[in-house]
Amino acid sequence: MSSLQFYNSLTRQKEVFSSLIPGRVGMYVCGPTVSGESHLGHARPFITFDIVYRYLRHLGYQVRYVRNITDAGHFEEEGRESEDKISKKAILEKLEPMELVQKYTNLFHWAMREFNNVEPSIEPTATGHIVEQIVMIQRIIADGYAYEANGSVYFDVEKYHRDFSAKGMQYGILSGRVLDDQLETTRELESQEEKRNKSDFALWKHAAPEHIMRWQSPWGEGFPGWHIECSAMSNKYLGAEFDIHGGGMDLQFPHHECEIAQSAVCNHQIPAKFWLHNNMITINGRKMGKSYNNVIKLSELFSGTHEILTQGYSPMTVRFFAEKGLRRIWEAFTQLNKFVIAENNISAGDPDLEQKCFEVLNALDDDMNDDLNTAKVLAGLFELVPIINSIKDGLIKGNALTTATMQMMKEKFNTFLVDIFGLKDEKKHDDQKLGAVLQLIAEIRKDARAKKDYATSDKIRNQLLEAGIQLKDEKDGGLSWELV
Amino acid sequence: MSSLQFYNSLTRQKEVFSSLIPGRVGMYVCGPTVSGESHLGHARPFITFDIVYRYLRHLGYQVRYVRNITDAGHFEEEGRESEDKISKKAILEKLEPMELVQKYTNLFHWAMREFNNVEPSIEPTATGHIVEQIVMIQRIIADGYAYEANGSVYFDVEKYHRDFSAKGMQYGILSGRVLDDQLETTRELESQEEKRNKSDFALWKHAAPEHIMRWQSPWGEGFPGWHIECSAMSNKYLGAEFDIHGGGMDLQFPHHECEIAQSAVCNHQIPAKFWLHNNMITINGRKMGKSYNNVIKLSELFSGTHEILTQGYSPMTVRFFAEKGLRRIWEAFTQLNKFVIAENNISAGDPDLEQKCFEVLNALDDDMNDDLNTAKVLAGLFELVPIINSIKDGLIKGNALTTATMQMMKEKFNTFLVDIFGLKDEKKHDDQKLGAVLQLIAEIRKDARAKKDYATSDKIRNQLLEAGIQLKDEKDGGLSWELV
Repeated sequence: MSSLQFYNSLTRQKEVFSSLIPGRVGMYVCGPTVSGESHLGHARPFITFDIVYRYLRHLGYQVRYVRNITDAGHFEEEGRESEDKISKKAILEKLEPMELVQKYTNLFHWAMREFNNVEPSIEPTATGHIVEQIVMIQRIIADGYAYEANGSVYFDVEKYHRDFSAKGMQYGILSGRVLDDQLETTRELESQEEKRNKSDFALWKHAAPEHIMRWQSPWGEGFPGWHIECSAMSNKYLGAEFDIHGGGMDLQFPHHECEIAQSAVCNHQIPAKFWLHNNMITINGRKMGKSYNNVIKLSELFSGTHEILTQGYSPMTVRFFAEKGLRRIWEAFTQLNKFVIAENNISAGDPDLEQKCFEVLNALDDDMNDDLNTAKVLAGLFELVPIINSIKDGLIKGNALTTATMQMMKEKFNTFLVDIFGLKDEKKHDDQKLGAVLQLIAEIRKDARAKKDYATSDKIRNQLLEAGIQLKDEKDGGLSWELV
Repeated sequence: MSSLQFYNSLTRQKEVFSSLIPGRVGMYVCGPTVSGESHLGHARPFITFDIVYRYLRHLGYQVRYVRNITDAGHFEEEGRESEDKISKKAILEKLEPMELVQKYTNLFHWAMREFNNVEPSIEPTATGHIVEQIVMIQRIIADGYAYEANGSVYFDVEKYHRDFSAKGMQYGILSGRVLDDQLETTRELESQEEKRNKSDFALWKHAAPEHIMRWQSPWGEGFPGWHIECSAMSNKYLGAEFDIHGGGMDLQFPHHECEIAQSAVCNHQIPAKFWLHNNMITINGRKMGKSYNNVIKLSELFSGTHEILTQGYSPMTVRFFAEKGLRRIWEAFTQLNKFVIAENNISAGDPDLEQKCFEVLNALDDDMNDDLNTAKVLAGLFELVPIINSIKDGLIKGNALTTATMQMMKEKFNTFLVDIFGLKDEKKHDDQKLGAVLQLIAEIRKDARAKKDYATSDKIRNQLLEAGIQLKDEKDGGLSWELV
């Protein structure tokens, strides 16, 4: 069998994965900024890395999966570093910032449960690690790569780039951007008069008197920059070097680039070996985001209440990304689990089919190992769907495939659909349907009694009682029932 | 109507509640220490204060409800201040302390959802407020009521008591304990050589090299004491003085007593006006707690898997505290909501009954206002249950009560059971039952067809289709169905 390979954004190629400590994996994924309700664009990285997490565990790794919550410090937009998203929204919603954080953290957790995502091992918050961020900033200042100006602290990108290029840790190593180009494209923005160079970024911001979120620091009252939180938290829970750093493609620059620079100064190395980035969800070619006004919130997506939607999509449909496909494969999967497999069929009744099924099943792990090519794995599983349906319909005989292949099919469907892709049955348990069916039964029983067919009416009463349903004759000749 | 009164532990009497800011209430409740799975004893305060929260909102207050999560600093037992519960358990479970915190926080939130508790407005963590705790400790030191010893900081209880007694804020004001008595009963314990007096308590503890949880502070690396976290967080989110401080009776001393002392030094006042304490759950006269080895975890309670249980109890049963009573009142409530109330019956057919019902209904708010006497409210509702049942059975005529009284009855049941007591329907949506009933229908249909009774067999097919269930004839003469 093949080895697991990931496309590593850092080296721009697929690489065989091996963990720093055998059998253990440390993975850090950039989590949500809880200044608003999560939308479809937010959901994607968390589903993607949930599958990475599930697959690594399936392979037998003990994974420490750290996904943070940004509850302070995420600046409204690049360059406007003096206000943060949370504070701004809190003023809008007339809430204490942490009330807002609580509200949207709860909503985020609800959405993650709906998507059947496994909870991360640690879910640290930015405000929960102010001390650690201050300590890291102090170290960067002490090493000469950050400077204070009016109670704010900035990272000196040019100096870092000059000194660390020779060590193979130049600024731009991850995104491929060249520092000179970056400067060309940087707009003239506030705080520039405090910065030595336009490309410098804030590690700590002085809090203006009206700013609500503020903490005491060696540089006066202020709040942390966005980039420093992930460096401080990944370092605290996963160490100076860990296996995987993940996030959306849009975080590659500047966020992850800055993380590398911060950690390189403090620990003299790039923090993670593998950098994985998922693609963004786009609508008409544009990334989904508040700035583009094309946001579908998850609650709107599930209920179908957004104006561009004509129906709601269940969490599993969103996870699977195709409603019809999900129904088709799930039905086949349910059917497969109902088959009674012959116990010892060592000779395939249809050798060609046996060969085909075996090949398809055998390729699944290789496809998954190939940078988690879930599309190819699904294509493989879909190839088997008509075969499962034909066995069910009796068009293919039960002995066509060997016991081993039938069992392998059952096992692979279970492993991939349930364990790794994290799909679950969404069929609604429907009380209304039970009510309607019981109503019908009551009518049939009434008819039977009218015809003096007591055998039928007694059969109905007794079998329902066995199923835990008690029929009650009402005075008015009606019939009611209760669950017993 | 009466005014809301609370029994205030601070004044040891019932007092009419009025909020500091009209229309708004700030309430702080001591939350769980997430070093293990929550048990029944833990659940009680959170259900109790959920009802307080719901009732205050019902009365129209805008409530900021802060309930913390203690994820550091809760010392193993009084006096053994050098290790904390989280660190100790993390070593036992071979987890990073914050992995352990995540695991038990998730379980706690699950239990709160099961109990149908409303989420608090803010749920701050101790580790998320290290800076705020350090700032508060610095202020206490500056004012002369705390001192450093070997990297730890202790609160000087005797000095505080001496100076603050005259200001009506003596140590013991809440619990009624006299300082001299406390000293007598304090055992000889570690760290005593660092303390000036036995009754002094830790605000900050120096971390020994092997201690995992540690933060940089002005006194070196260490971790906060337990008591200071609640003072720092309540002060941050509710201000120097707020309306209600709640918690279990066991927290009155020393925890709340210490909170008062800390806040009194920093803000020159007792932090909360009303101190509410719920009674403890006891088993054979002993408080439920790990130290007594009589703990029933919530997951064991719901599933009935604890050795002293003969059955499981649903979350709503636990909330209601009586299984039979819950079923009886919930059935009456469901029935009540099904009644079609006459539109304009202004003259009661049974004036005595009308009078009785009106009096019972009218007393409910007064009982609730009387220090949330939920037992009395329930007794009132239970008085109405046989009346509702008699109306249903036709033993009492539909016009016996006026329209106004019938509507009031409906409204009060809804308000108290659903809105204030937070009960919800727990009837299991049961797929198995639907399956069993459909199996029966399939048999009846087969019999009907065998008897050439096509009217019945068509009726079955059509009515099921209307209910969204499609019957399928199988080749082998069997029958299957699917939800459409």
